[in-house]
Amino acid sequence: VKILTFISDFGLSDPYVGEVKGVVKAVSPDAEIIDITHGIEPGNLLEASFVLAGAYRYFSAGSVHLVVVDPGVGTGRDIIAVHTADHCFIGPDNGVLHEAVKEEGENDMKIYALDRVLLYEELSRRAAGNRVVQRLLDAPASATFHGRDLFAPLAGLLLEEVQTRSVCVPCDRKRMERLDIPVPVEKERSVTGTVLHIDRFGNLITNIPGDLLRGGGDVFIHVKDELVSVGSLVGTYADVEAGKPVALISSRRHLEIAVNGGSARDYFAASCGDEILVMRGRCDD
Amino acid sequence: VKILTFISDFGLSDPYVGEVKGVVKAVSPDAEIIDITHGIEPGNLLEASFVLAGAYRYFSAGSVHLVVVDPGVGTGRDIIAVHTADHCFIGPDNGVLHEAVKEEGENDMKIYALDRVLLYEELSRRAAGNRVVQRLLDAPASATFHGRDLFAPLAGLLLEEVQTRSVCVPCDRKRMERLDIPVPVEKERSVTGTVLHIDRFGNLITNIPGDLLRGGGDVFIHVKDELVSVGSLVGTYADVEAGKPVALISSRRHLEIAVNGGSARDYFAASCGDEILVMRGRCDD
Amino acid sequence: VKILTFISDFGLSDPYVGEVKGVVKAVSPDAEIIDITHGIEPGNLLEASFVLAGAYRYFSAGSVHLVVVDPGVGTGRDIIAVHTADHCFIGPDNGVLHEAVKEEGENDMKIYALDRVLLYEELSRRAAGNRVVQRLLDAPASATFHGRDLFAPLAGLLLEEVQTRSVCVPCDRKRMERLDIPVPVEKERSVTGTVLHIDRFGNLITNIPGDLLRGGGDVFIHVKDELVSVGSLVGTYADVEAGKPVALISSRRHLEIAVNGGSARDYFAASCGDEILVMRGRCDD
Repeated sequence: VKILTFISDFGLSDPYVGEVKGVVKAVSPDAEIIDITHGIEPGNLLEASFVLAGAYRYFSAGSVHLVVVDPGVGTGRDIIAVHTADHCFIGPDNGVLHEAVKEEGENDMKIYALDRVLLYEELSRRAAGNRVVQRLLDAPASATFHGRDLFAPLAGLLLEEVQTRSVCVPCDRKRMERLDIPVPVEKERSVTGTVLHIDRFGNLITNIPGDLLRGGGDVFIHVKDELVSVGSLVGTYADVEAGKPVALISSRRHLEIAVNGGSARDYFAASCGDEILVMRGRCDD
Repeated sequence: VKILTFISDFGLSDPYVGEVKGVVKAVSPDAEIIDITHGIEPGNLLEASFVLAGAYRYFSAGSVHLVVVDPGVGTGRDIIAVHTADHCFIGPDNGVLHEAVKEEGENDMKIYALDRVLLYEELSRRAAGNRVVQRLLDAPASATFHGRDLFAPLAGLLLEEVQTRSVCVPCDRKRMERLDIPVPVEKERSVTGTVLHIDRFGNLITNIPGDLLRGGGDVFIHVKDELVSVGSLVGTYADVEAGKPVALISSRRHLEIAVNGGSARDYFAASCGDEILVMRGRCDD
Repeated sequence: VKILTFISDFGLSDPYVGEVKGVVKAVSPDAEIIDITHGIEPGNLLEASFVLAGAYRYFSAGSVHLVVVDPGVGTGRDIIAVHTADHCFIGPDNGVLHEAVKEEGENDMKIYALDRVLLYEELSRRAAGNRVVQRLLDAPASATFHGRDLFAPLAGLLLEEVQTRSVCVPCDRKRMERLDIPVPVEKERSVTGTVLHIDRFGNLITNIPGDLLRGGGDVFIHVKDELVSVGSLVGTYADVEAGKPVALISSRRHLEIAVNGGSARDYFAASCGDEILVMRGRCDD
């Protein structure tokens, strides 16, 4: 069984997610579709990129990962399929796939762009007795819902192990779009980073790799000029009193600021993009 | 593998959706259940009807579609199963199924009403060693959760390809309830329609078929007395500047009012039921 | 096919639910995962316990039920697997499983605590060619996301019918934590109970068993000193006028206070924990 993971900004109240799934299943009846989230803020590519890069690696080799966060739907932007050694990623060429692909290793990747003529040729070979595929062929793709009309049949065909070259054309890898993701700035005794994501619990996930902080010695962490933590990072939330802020290494190995039993978002009135300053005093100073 | 799609107003925070799925799977272990949405506003039949009619057609022939939006639960209203050429629809006889059935063609349809005595007889044949079915037989159906106690076992049995007549009685098709869905009013140089649905992106989906607007020439579209668009309909959101309103043909082939990168709901302070006026100047005038 | 039900407080906007599912499927590729809810209020053990105890019983014998509501993640609290005659429950030993286990019968249950050394030994036997399992072995379990790093592989192994003793150690059943769930107080002519849960419809689900109220005769029910119902309990919502409050027996066989076509939460400004007073006048008085 092949797994398709699915990330979008469609929400769960409209028929859009269901329509995409129906088309995928019509093309690839044995596919197993696992939702990662459909709660991406409309058009928020950074958020979608963050969620994809976190989740994809916990799916077995051979999984296909579909991301439809596509504010440029219907324009000339490409629909791309990126193969790395173990995974396949499908999304609009707007940068949303790049962080995940980068972690898999860009040297091995192959990038393809959907070719609509080839796609329709392949679908027409499968249309007999398949009313959903017939519907895709009978009506031109809408300009506003490529998730259903183009991404879904592409994903279904790749899950069916159709050769990517039979529905796509190879691209120069330099063409792949990238997002402008903030990187931490390291100085001799400090690291300045950014809040990349705030989760449901109000935890602030930063872009500062935990490895930068593991050297031992004391760390002094400031969130919006408020001192959170002095001394070592703690291991888990409950290492401080309920209601107190805490700095630790997140499950993604980045610096995370939390409040035990509470919300760091509320405690610090924090937002994505807020600056985090870490002052270090290494043992080997 | 048979697919059951599932629409309800149960939300995702209570155990209700899980309980329905557990019963379906206990009766039909190989069924694949695909959620369309459980975010229908409580009791909103128009919204559920709109979502069903949009989504069902993207599922393969043979799918069963379950809708449990049922403000009359426990009263005398029937539970019906409607067979069209390619699909089966299950829901309360409150009108929620009619739009979808109408699109499939009412000439071919057959309507059945659940017969509880027959249902329990059929279930009792399957109770041996099946603790969930045994539980349904041991306790009378609750008066407030037919989704779990009646719709779910009915759906499970139909997915198992039990003859509908063995658990239901045929109905006169004239008996099927219909909703009072607003229809557009066409005059020589104008069409007056209504906002039927507002999606997660704040797009206003109207009841005006795109075909009424394709004649060429200029169109002048008013939302709540504000002029949105002069000239041709555009193809996609990004055909106008960010933050600007746009009129286009939706992925359901109806007139849609959107704001590129924003929300038409917010821009126009729009609600479902708002009037949309289209003035036409056809080429052939 | 083995079913895993899944309850958490992870919400649906972060990658956490997807990461857990990816790990479960990597260990047990044929597992079918059914979400009950991920909308539990962060850390709310009473709510999670209520949802689990309602839903689990509608899943077939042999199902595994995973609950990750775990404010003590990373502390010394055990991760337990509880086997009853028909079900297996996995969760933190913080009381969240107890209500469900109690209903299954505590006499038959066997409690085990996860042993990390045994878990990693078992996983290492399955690591060849399995990149996700290899990842779990290569990195120590995070201190903040045991759902992904410990609960998910444990669930996957039990779904694969690995002997529980090969990854866990047996526990004294007296050790299992319990929640402090309010119980109704019965007097000669009254029962005083509590609102345990308020569902999406605004229905107030109480801890008063319906059996206590079935004796016949009139009942007088007060919610926050307001008289709701005089006379018999009704059967269903629509037995009163739209907008009127109603008292009935819920689909869980407890006293429920609702408003026909509306929300009892709003009508009474009710919250979980509010007191409900029932005055009885039995026929046999």
